[in-house]
Amino acid sequence: MNPKKAFSKLKKISEDSHAIGDVSAIVSWDQEVNMPPKGLENRGRMMSWLAQQRHKNATNPEVGEALKATLSGDWNEKEKACLREWQRGWDLSTKIPADLVQRSALASVKGHESWKSAREKNDFSIFRDDLKELIDLSKERAECIGYTTESYDALLDMYQAGMNVQGIDALFTNLKNKLTPLLEEILDWQGEIEDDPVAGHYSQEEQKKFCEWGAKHIGFDFDAGRIDTAVHPFCSGAGPGDIRLTTRYNLENPFDSFFGSLHETGHGLYEQGLPSGKDEYGTPLSESVSLGIHESQSLFWESIVGQSPEFWEYVLPFFKEHFPGRADSVTHAQIVRRTNKVSRSLIRVEADEVTYPLHVILRFEIERDIFRGNLSVDDLPDAWNQKMQELIGVTPPNNTLGVLQDVHWSMGGFGYFPTYALGRLYSAQFTEKLSKDIPSWKDDMAKGDCSPALKWSRKNIHSRGSIYRTEQLIEKVTGTPPSEEPFLSYLRKKYKSIFS
Amino acid sequence: MNPKKAFSKLKKISEDSHAIGDVSAIVSWDQEVNMPPKGLENRGRMMSWLAQQRHKNATNPEVGEALKATLSGDWNEKEKACLREWQRGWDLSTKIPADLVQRSALASVKGHESWKSAREKNDFSIFRDDLKELIDLSKERAECIGYTTESYDALLDMYQAGMNVQGIDALFTNLKNKLTPLLEEILDWQGEIEDDPVAGHYSQEEQKKFCEWGAKHIGFDFDAGRIDTAVHPFCSGAGPGDIRLTTRYNLENPFDSFFGSLHETGHGLYEQGLPSGKDEYGTPLSESVSLGIHESQSLFWESIVGQSPEFWEYVLPFFKEHFPGRADSVTHAQIVRRTNKVSRSLIRVEADEVTYPLHVILRFEIERDIFRGNLSVDDLPDAWNQKMQELIGVTPPNNTLGVLQDVHWSMGGFGYFPTYALGRLYSAQFTEKLSKDIPSWKDDMAKGDCSPALKWSRKNIHSRGSIYRTEQLIEKVTGTPPSEEPFLSYLRKKYKSIFS
Repeated sequence: MNPKKAFSKLKKISEDSHAIGDVSAIVSWDQEVNMPPKGLENRGRMMSWLAQQRHKNATNPEVGEALKATLSGDWNEKEKACLREWQRGWDLSTKIPADLVQRSALASVKGHESWKSAREKNDFSIFRDDLKELIDLSKERAECIGYTTESYDALLDMYQAGMNVQGIDALFTNLKNKLTPLLEEILDWQGEIEDDPVAGHYSQEEQKKFCEWGAKHIGFDFDAGRIDTAVHPFCSGAGPGDIRLTTRYNLENPFDSFFGSLHETGHGLYEQGLPSGKDEYGTPLSESVSLGIHESQSLFWESIVGQSPEFWEYVLPFFKEHFPGRADSVTHAQIVRRTNKVSRSLIRVEADEVTYPLHVILRFEIERDIFRGNLSVDDLPDAWNQKMQELIGVTPPNNTLGVLQDVHWSMGGFGYFPTYALGRLYSAQFTEKLSKDIPSWKDDMAKGDCSPALKWSRKNIHSRGSIYRTEQLIEKVTGTPPSEEPFLSYLRKKYKSIFS
Repeated sequence: MNPKKAFSKLKKISEDSHAIGDVSAIVSWDQEVNMPPKGLENRGRMMSWLAQQRHKNATNPEVGEALKATLSGDWNEKEKACLREWQRGWDLSTKIPADLVQRSALASVKGHESWKSAREKNDFSIFRDDLKELIDLSKERAECIGYTTESYDALLDMYQAGMNVQGIDALFTNLKNKLTPLLEEILDWQGEIEDDPVAGHYSQEEQKKFCEWGAKHIGFDFDAGRIDTAVHPFCSGAGPGDIRLTTRYNLENPFDSFFGSLHETGHGLYEQGLPSGKDEYGTPLSESVSLGIHESQSLFWESIVGQSPEFWEYVLPFFKEHFPGRADSVTHAQIVRRTNKVSRSLIRVEADEVTYPLHVILRFEIERDIFRGNLSVDDLPDAWNQKMQELIGVTPPNNTLGVLQDVHWSMGGFGYFPTYALGRLYSAQFTEKLSKDIPSWKDDMAKGDCSPALKWSRKNIHSRGSIYRTEQLIEKVTGTPPSEEPFLSYLRKKYKSIFS
């Protein structure tokens, strides 16, 4: 096969892989949003058929042959990026034997069940054996994939290409050393927390309208997407022209759905901004870079924008308009304090932006030690509680509120957590550069115009698809490698101005 | 391959074909109900990938080999039915060359566009050449499939196995000879049509609730299905546990959406009643018999039940409750006359149940004559208008209201129309037997209990999947071959009692 032909072959197979992915996304979205309960059994058959097609496509021997044939070709930057990602996909799909994939799938189902039961009964021992098996299977997986330094590297790299223990360790150690004292300071500045100034009942219909207003306000294109209700908030869809966001509603608190949907809208804005031209469609050029970069986009709109005083200068009147009678007399200062409460809390998904990274660092350190063999499954609950005290300053009263709180491990998801915290670091680093490039972006936002920030993200991040890998993109955009400094200085500046 | 193994192989491929069909159904449904406008381009790619998988599965050479290997096997009635349908599917998929499939697809797209333009501009000549090509392609298709007597037979059989010109001709000739004078009589009995006793504005929300009430009332299981809004009403879904109905709303007339949704619910009840056990799932035993039988189920609930005086004895108070202020003083007799208006009208989809079959007979006779070479495309508009006068007693003032009204021909759908009228005949014939088996079913319905009728359909029709072919099923259930008599006697009795 000549190299040009081989490239075309790979592009065709990549397009099929996108078609399968988009079909699967719509079928899964439908399952979460629309499917009647009795549809579950057959939905399983449909998803299993789709999974088979995905596997067949990814392990098609022609991919391996074509990849070899491209080695002698002469490629431009975009083509090189495609080949790099196709090679990565091929390696990940073919290095793990079918037998291990199947054993892992079974262990995930089993683990997920026992985890639910353990969490419900606050009894770690119910989950213990399955967790042990899931860890062993992940070790096996890491050996199949291969690594330079330690097995956990292979797992980290699976979720975000280029991520490894050494890099994260450096970032996270600096971060925790500076964040722990900063948290102390911020809590000091905050002082006593006042009563909720907008307490009341917020109906689902009202909240839905406000969430849609918010998504539209920050730039979501409703001709190319929609927002629906689901048990778990997520962003999904079938290409940039059809992005599906979901949110859920807490009738006592309109901020849960609002910030949740700003978060998902952030993911959606990234997706809507990905390239979709003839040459890009169906290739890595139309794909997001990594979980960390994706999270940087959702957190930018949720936290850096959505929880900023400037944003609320414009938004507060609309908030009052959407929820008459419950926020009539609330002040800007009150709403900003209300939406930026900081506390030493137990649950990661409910944590504020200051403590959140500490929850993630805890999980990273535990996973690292497990895969290094320095921590046994039986010592996990104690290690968790000790680290909670050390990092966040609270000790969980039980395992349900501690080591059993997250779903990830129950499905073998080791190596995923760090991307959540990395997203926060990246978003602050991007924002620092945005402020240099467009110093007026916050003033524009305070006047109701979020488009300068979105345009900047479109140009610097979204439109680049997967041409660059994560760290390369960050350097390209900001001029420096990933760092914890912008995040720390963002926190210090913001919370000082809000609370003191 | 030994026969048992060959059967298992065929079952596996059939299950995959169902999975592909169910996935495609959900993706298409989503396109009609949920897709944002900018999703269209990528949706085309998704559907095209699914079509390729369907084609690959249906023409898998292993099917042909396995079918041959089963010839020496010893099979029970259900297995024989599966093999019969698998053979039919194999023949239809492999006899038509890929090249003809592709040319037909292109001609359909072109024809559909020129038909829309012709209809809009009331100019048949815009559609003429494309229609000619679509007819020629259908002739080519008929030659590929093969037939005993005439080419139109091959097309009829494609839409409903066993349907042929001779059989339909016999039924339709009897029907029109008796229906034309009966229509005269019914119009006489009806006399002057009174003003609409329930004129008013009916909001979409109110109508939606009433449609859902109606669907539930006749037995639709909302744990295994849902109703949504779409431009064209249809019934779709992913197996018996997940049936999707759609309806549309006319704000001046709540009966359009109500009878439309009873119609689709009728289709949905059939689908929800199909077998889905381990041995049946994914095989013809879990499939509906034919378009004609499917239509008999939708028309039973829409017309024979929904437009009956007995049904409205129970339903009228609920109608009044759902639409306060617009129907407060309407009487049962008024509502029954209002929902059973008969008229010599121009448009098939708006026709009442009395004249509807005449619209279909017209199309059947025209298609038959075209494929016999007795009618040229250029003579089509005149032939249409002449037949309209002859059969229904009106002449269309223009081609938009005449020969250009239906979408079917613009997409090469020749041979489909007869199933609409057959459905009416079958539904009346089934109902005659239902009344013999359960003489009280109408009294039960008048008291609000539709379940005896549904249970009867479940037992006699739905639960049988595709074990029998259409005519065989009708004989099995009613004891006689398909006949026009039950339909005619149903009409005579009903309209006499309503109008005179």
